[in-house]
Amino acid sequence: MYLQMEIKSYIPVKIIFGKGCVFNNKEVFKDTGHFPLIITGRSGAKKSGAFDDVINALAGGPYILYDRIEENPKVSAVEDAAMMSKKFNCDYIIAIGGGSALDAAKAIAVLAVTNMSGMDLFSKKIGKALPIIAIPTTSGTGSEVTPYSILTVDEWQTKKSFASEYIFPKYALLDPKYTYSLPADYTISTAFDAASHLFESYFSLKSTNLSQMYSIEGIHSFAKAVNALQIKQFDEQSRNDLMYASMLGGIAISHTGTTAMHALGYSMTYFHKMPHGFSNLYFVKPYFQHMMKHEKDKTKLIIKELGFSDIDTMCDFFLEKMERPVLNQEQCVKYGAIAMIQSSIKATPGNLETEDIVRMYKEAGSL
Amino acid sequence: MYLQMEIKSYIPVKIIFGKGCVFNNKEVFKDTGHFPLIITGRSGAKKSGAFDDVINALAGGPYILYDRIEENPKVSAVEDAAMMSKKFNCDYIIAIGGGSALDAAKAIAVLAVTNMSGMDLFSKKIGKALPIIAIPTTSGTGSEVTPYSILTVDEWQTKKSFASEYIFPKYALLDPKYTYSLPADYTISTAFDAASHLFESYFSLKSTNLSQMYSIEGIHSFAKAVNALQIKQFDEQSRNDLMYASMLGGIAISHTGTTAMHALGYSMTYFHKMPHGFSNLYFVKPYFQHMMKHEKDKTKLIIKELGFSDIDTMCDFFLEKMERPVLNQEQCVKYGAIAMIQSSIKATPGNLETEDIVRMYKEAGSL
Repeated sequence: MYLQMEIKSYIPVKIIFGKGCVFNNKEVFKDTGHFPLIITGRSGAKKSGAFDDVINALAGGPYILYDRIEENPKVSAVEDAAMMSKKFNCDYIIAIGGGSALDAAKAIAVLAVTNMSGMDLFSKKIGKALPIIAIPTTSGTGSEVTPYSILTVDEWQTKKSFASEYIFPKYALLDPKYTYSLPADYTISTAFDAASHLFESYFSLKSTNLSQMYSIEGIHSFAKAVNALQIKQFDEQSRNDLMYASMLGGIAISHTGTTAMHALGYSMTYFHKMPHGFSNLYFVKPYFQHMMKHEKDKTKLIIKELGFSDIDTMCDFFLEKMERPVLNQEQCVKYGAIAMIQSSIKATPGNLETEDIVRMYKEAGSL
Repeated sequence: MYLQMEIKSYIPVKIIFGKGCVFNNKEVFKDTGHFPLIITGRSGAKKSGAFDDVINALAGGPYILYDRIEENPKVSAVEDAAMMSKKFNCDYIIAIGGGSALDAAKAIAVLAVTNMSGMDLFSKKIGKALPIIAIPTTSGTGSEVTPYSILTVDEWQTKKSFASEYIFPKYALLDPKYTYSLPADYTISTAFDAASHLFESYFSLKSTNLSQMYSIEGIHSFAKAVNALQIKQFDEQSRNDLMYASMLGGIAISHTGTTAMHALGYSMTYFHKMPHGFSNLYFVKPYFQHMMKHEKDKTKLIIKELGFSDIDTMCDFFLEKMERPVLNQEQCVKYGAIAMIQSSIKATPGNLETEDIVRMYKEAGSL
């Protein structure tokens, strides 16, 4: 007899997934509001075709465009955009882009209807936000279906997340077509972000039968794209599979949060400019070796599901795709201290202490 | 290459599943409103222990009780209860019971805040409803996680459903403990309702990768209880597995609706007083024989997943548990005409015509 732990689940997002989903569901924009603030990065929204589809769907209706979200958006940027929303009295937000645009949009949605400062997002209770339509142009973040937003906080020299049920997008419109124009290396690093969500949620101490179902379905879909990731060529099918995997990764972490790989990865992005997806999988070997000790069955299931024979072959698959900095002792200690603050450490099986984390930093560049 | 059809998914219910979940989450009541109308049947809510847990969780707060919901609730009953809600100005609804109480509560939630008549529910657009906390005391209906309500309409001599995103419960609190006191025969018939949701959604032409994931997870959980259903003895584990399966069945049909078994089953409940779960599985043999022709892989997967060797053994498992009326030609034709009106017929693979349906009515009692 195993009797489940308490399952909690809440994903109030209207998800529409499939080629042409923006064009085929124009009514969602009118259903959400009258005067949107469109949040994008500098180029991805336009290159992907998503921006044009949205403008077309708005059918001549008014909108304000804020297209200056940088990768790893800073608190100051979201404050800037929120001021714009207030000035023009926008009543909903359309976020088009990768995790940066989507996460920024969530922060903007809150700041636009409150008197909170950007830093307040991390400490004060959030009680409202503008409704958001999220349109991902990468397959990695899963942000379109999560209550999380991750911003870069220079004062704290790291990325910091906040969570609120009010920042769940009202709609997530996922069209794999928007990822067709992504360069291979960017497709790979974002796909690794999705993989890390799926793996970390699956292992999480907060995982339940239900959350593991999402992880397994996502890992299964990611597995179908392993060959494409290997040869670095992506057809419609693999783009489709990766976007579905990414969405499931988002749903999975909405139930559990992440675990140690994310906590460790933030410093690799902040100090070494590694793309977010690589910064997590950079730790794949020490993380999976740790998991093999504490969650053997789950570890074996992932390796098998992805079609690898053992832990080393699987780790090689991920590690071969990235450049790996080697960290010195001072860096490992410093980053270790930063990582230990993240609550995701506590959700990792096997009771990680500071010394384990520091060791993982050391081993990641050398194993 | 298979490229998915468009996936749509929306389950805005805060799901909390597990033993003690009402007691452990008292704050959900305050979070939902101040003055609840509690909707129950005549005895199940109290026998199950759920009513006491709710009163305890309300901690002395005021409530109004309407405990006169009958099985297969009629339109007149929900009008009656809605009047009560209006009279006392209740601001949310707590529904405790099986599908009848939960479905009635959804109708009451709409009528309590509109000027609609009960019959309007089937024809007019629904724009609002009181928030609902749904607490199932049976494992079958899945109503706690669906946007559907099914009422008995005497004028039309059948059961009729209506759907609205406004009648999704705000909270679903699922405690398997509340089913411990259910008699074996009632446990079996309700479990069959859950099974029919899982099967029918899995086969539905509206099914997607995502909805099928829920069906398969639910079928997997139902399978773990097959032995208990066989020996008609239910321990905590099998009660838990059946409630989890039932919830997943609800989530699955929220994505797809049902198919032919439900359409055919309504007349068996209306005219022959068969319990709802039996009235659907009464058609298991002609339905699965039809599916074996049109969806061979899916049919085989279900049979295998449930641990049976072939379609006949599986059907026997279901059919042995119920008394089966044999229908005459006149009845088959009459019920066939009623069933053909149901939209779920069109969602069934294999293009069912009236003559197929009439044949299924004939075969169901004799095969």
